[in-house]
Parts: sequence; structure tokens; C-alpha cells
Amino acid sequence: MGGDFGPSVVVPGCAIARERYPDCRFVFFGDASEVRPLLARHPALEAVAEVEHTDVAVRMEDKPSQALRQGRRRSSMWMALEAVKTGRADMAVSAGNTGALMAMSKLCLRMMPGIERPALAAIWPTLRGESIVLDVGATIGADAEQLVSFALMGEAMARALFSLKRPTVGLLNIGVEEVKGLEYVRAAGQMLREGGLPIAYAGFIEGDDIGKGTVDVVVTEGFSGNIALKTAEGTAKQIAQYLRDAMGRSLFSKIGFLFAKGAFDTLKEKMDPRKSNGGVFLGLNGLVVKSHGGTDAEGYAAAVALGHHLARNGLMKKVADSVDHYQKDRASAQEQHPEVAHS
Amino acid sequence: MGGDFGPSVVVPGCAIARERYPDCRFVFFGDASEVRPLLARHPALEAVAEVEHTDVAVRMEDKPSQALRQGRRRSSMWMALEAVKTGRADMAVSAGNTGALMAMSKLCLRMMPGIERPALAAIWPTLRGESIVLDVGATIGADAEQLVSFALMGEAMARALFSLKRPTVGLLNIGVEEVKGLEYVRAAGQMLREGGLPIAYAGFIEGDDIGKGTVDVVVTEGFSGNIALKTAEGTAKQIAQYLRDAMGRSLFSKIGFLFAKGAFDTLKEKMDPRKSNGGVFLGLNGLVVKSHGGTDAEGYAAAVALGHHLARNGLMKKVADSVDHYQKDRASAQEQHPEVAHS
Repeated sequence: MGGDFGPSVVVPGCAIARERYPDCRFVFFGDASEVRPLLARHPALEAVAEVEHTDVAVRMEDKPSQALRQGRRRSSMWMALEAVKTGRADMAVSAGNTGALMAMSKLCLRMMPGIERPALAAIWPTLRGESIVLDVGATIGADAEQLVSFALMGEAMARALFSLKRPTVGLLNIGVEEVKGLEYVRAAGQMLREGGLPIAYAGFIEGDDIGKGTVDVVVTEGFSGNIALKTAEGTAKQIAQYLRDAMGRSLFSKIGFLFAKGAFDTLKEKMDPRKSNGGVFLGLNGLVVKSHGGTDAEGYAAAVALGHHLARNGLMKKVADSVDHYQKDRASAQEQHPEVAHS
Repeated sequence: MGGDFGPSVVVPGCAIARERYPDCRFVFFGDASEVRPLLARHPALEAVAEVEHTDVAVRMEDKPSQALRQGRRRSSMWMALEAVKTGRADMAVSAGNTGALMAMSKLCLRMMPGIERPALAAIWPTLRGESIVLDVGATIGADAEQLVSFALMGEAMARALFSLKRPTVGLLNIGVEEVKGLEYVRAAGQMLREGGLPIAYAGFIEGDDIGKGTVDVVVTEGFSGNIALKTAEGTAKQIAQYLRDAMGRSLFSKIGFLFAKGAFDTLKEKMDPRKSNGGVFLGLNGLVVKSHGGTDAEGYAAAVALGHHLARNGLMKKVADSVDHYQKDRASAQEQHPEVAHS
């Protein structure tokens, strides 16, 4: 069981999730001598939990290739994925090594037909609620085709997560006139606009549109997506620090802080990164949720809740249908206009 | 005279700058019938200002190619750049069309030898003070060579702007283990680490390191740089809105707000985007400062102050020396080990 803190976060996190979602059942893959005593402290969770012992764990510092060589089949990560593959579990949640999780997921669960590489979709709190941003770092250097598949998968996820009928989809781009975006972003924009896809494509958006919540689904290639996500996290921390510094500066501001404590608590909750913990790997034949490695029990519970919600709302089928539909459309376009396929 | 508000912002902005930097002199290129009456309201500025009339202006919505065709030679933008070229001015400041400004700058001032395309360098407020981030959108799809030249130019700018002897330079990358960065970012990292360059290269950094101020100079390709910048702006606005909402919610929080007004003012100042207004085009044979198009007089004054500071501290010479040094090193390496040049 991975993450920076292993079972000591995962088990209490699942205990919180169990309380909120009484229909959840859990299988823990890891060192039984660590997991069982922790479970004993949470009888309600223990009652719906199974433990599969293994003492092989992928370490946070392992390279994916290393993890695959050493940990395949016997590691807790692999076993959790296999439980999804065999249908024993509806989803796998891991706070472990992201690269290894992705590599193992691809190998164990395989990609959906027509999807080359997975995308990691994050939940981004916005002024209008929440948006989905993908890819935040699973695949770097995506091409136009891949961006279109990200759009389809993200849109399906927004339908499952936000219960929206027609979530809007934007393509992240830059606004300097001279150089309106990279070639492949422009090409993806054209495909989304003119491709007759069954999604509400809203055009290009810029970085500041993400926080505004201009669209429900923000599509971007993984390098820029990861940089956007981390930069936003950094900015939020920076402002929180400014705020703490400012409020502690004088007696007046300290008194003000006490009066406005409720307001600050609301703000803190709004900005709590644990609330939006959990990214989803899309494009796999199975639901895999990645929790932040450094999160606590509350954050881990949020990742479980995300997966639970998505499993309940048929994410896998929605994504598969969307992708399948697109593949068929393309195949028939290819038959009728072979040259289109190469455009 | 460009920007969203033209001379009505530029002239009062320069009046503020004139007050703060009494050694500045100004040449205004634009519609004299608009500029002169505005100048008349600021006698101290008027005393050190010249007006060069033209009624050709590049519009914000013009495409750069259009601007070049129509506005070349007779537009206020071109005339301002030519004043830099001929040595009449130490720098040009524009709030106009970014793409047109870049295209005209390249054509009028030309690139420094060995630099292919300019980089737009932004000043980024951090927890440790300020950092320089480049490129934030002048050049997209840079290669390893270009990232190295960005590093050299940004480092020279940090010496001029922050009076640092050995500013640290980091390369923006992503931390997902599987896919540690794009090829060209890795290649640039290697060149910076092993190339014997006279700069303090600190390695890869991630998006959240920007706000922390981990390094003095953040180097990235323009697409991801622009997305990082806009995303940070968006996040700052989002949190400011959360804060306003929270403080207005109850009587207690309103009272708290009044007590802590001084603290909030400090915070507001810290987060004031006008303070860090102004990007610098690096790599040109002349100093060109781009002000945000939608800024006000205070913001415009900050852009003038930035250029003034850089001109004072010999930015152009520092950048040219750095680039020149590198070119010579490369040329001699090429002579000695011709195969290195193609690596």
C-alpha cells in the first residue's frame, strides 16, 4: 500500500469513506500485519473489508520499468489492478508511485480500443463549481488525435461526475495573436469543431479560464496540463501565506481575524486541496483513481468518494461508448473518403 | 498609441513614472490631437516630452502580418521601435497588440546574432520576492538550443533587474516519474548542466516552485509559460473572489474585515497585478517593454519603471555579452569537435 504514509492513511481514509458511503466494500492489498491492526480500530470498516496479504510494494522512488520488472504480479499495486480486471473490484485507488501505477495499469488493464495512451484527469475547483482538466501529466507530447480522445473521455467523465447532459469542452491554448497555439492544438480545434462529434465544443480557452470555470472540461496535453495544475497549487499556497502573514501583522488584524474566523474557515475549506484530491486515469479498461501521495485520511477519503461516484454513474461505460462511437465514425469516414483519414 | 485605452492611460502613466524617475524623458508617438491635451494636464511630464504625430495605429485585433503590411513605417508602434533603433530612445514601451509588437520588433530591431526568436520575460511575484519567467508566449515550440538561450538571456536580465551576482536558473518540467519531461527539455537540462555555461543552473523545477521562488529565473517554452502565467493569474483572481465572498457573508466577518482592513490592504497590494505589469522582449537589438493592454496608469508606470531600471543597469549589454560569449564558445567547440555541433 503506497503513498508517503501507506496503510496509516489509507485505512482511516477508507473508514471515513465507509461512513459516508455505506454500500462500499473494500479489499486491502498490502502487508496484513500492518493492515489488520489498523482495521481493528475501525470495526465498521473491518466488517466490510478483506485483506490480501503481500509484502511486495512498489516504492515511491522506483522507476516504472523497475516496478514492472520487480513488482509485477506480486506487488500490492498489481494485485489491486488485477482485482479490477477480474471484476472483483469496481475500481482501484492508489496513493502510490504515479508512473508505476500508470505503467502497470496499461499492462494489466490494457487501453480501450483506439486509445493509445491514458490521460490523467484532475478535478479543478472553479468559481462556478468544479471542472475536469485533462491530461495533467500521464501523457506528454500528445498529438491532435490524442487531444480529441481526451476531449471525448473528459466529456464522458463530466457527464458521470457532474450529472450534466451536455458539458462544455474547451481546448487550452495561448492568446498571443502571432502564434495562436501549436500546430497540433489548432488541428485538434478543427477536428473538434468540424468533426461532427457529439460534444459541446466551446473553442479555445486560456489559462485564466480554468479558475473561472468557463468550461466544464479543459483539454490539454500532459506537459502543459501538469504545469498548469502545479502552478495553480503553488499560487494558492503563496496567497494563503500572504494572507497568514498579513493577518498576523498587527493587533488590529489579529482581532479582525478572530471576528472573521468563520469566514476564514469557509475560505480554508474552499481552498482545501484535500477536497479535490484524486485524479482518474482515463482510457483504460478499468477504473483507476490516483490519490495524492502526501494526502491524509480526509484526502484519501475524497479519492475513494470520487471513484465511488464515478463507478456508480457508469463512467467506464460512458467513456467506452463515446470512444467506440468515435472510432466507428472515423472508420466509416475512412472507408468513404480514404484521404480524410490521413489529413 | 495602443492598449485598450490608448493615450488616456499611457500619458497619465508616464506622468507617474516621470515623478518617480525625474531623469526620464519621453517621446510620444501617436495622434497629437489626442496626446497634447492630455500632456497639458501634466506640466512636469510635458516639460520633458516630445510628441511625434501619426494617425496610423496598429489595432489590437490586427493580425501581425496585417500590421506589418499596413502599419509599417508610419504606425506609432513602428516609429517608437525606430526611435530605439536609431538611439533616440533607450527603450520602447507599448501596451499595444503583442503579436504585432513582436513581429515589428524583429523586423525593425533584428535579433541578436545567434538568437533565432525573441522570448517574452515576465516578472513573477514569489514568496521570496520576484522571479523572472520566460518565455511567456513569444515563441512557441522552442527547442533545446532556444531554451538554453532563454536561460542565458533570463540570467542576464536577473543580474540587471535584481542586482544579483549569480542568479539561479531552473528549467520548468513535470514530475511524473514515467515521463520526466519532453525530449527537448531533457536535452536543454543536459546542455545547461554540462555545457560549462557561466550560470548557476539549479536543475528542473515544477510549477509550484515558481510561486515559492525556488529559483530567480524560470525557463520554459512559450506555450507552457503562457499557460502557467495565465493560470496563476486566474487562480489569484479566484481566491480573491473567494475571500471577498467569505468576508461579506456575516456581520461578524464584516466587523473582522474592518479591524483587519490594514492587513487586507497589504494583501491587496501584494496581489496587485499592476505592480508586476510589463514583460520584456529578450533577444532583440534594443529594449522593448510590453505593458498589459488592459492596465491603468499605475500599471503603465510600472512597465516604464521596469524598462527604466533595466536600461539603467545595462540590460542590453549584459544580454549581448552573455549570448556572444556562448556563441563564441560554441563556435570554438565546433571547430575542435565538429560532431558536437550536430549533437
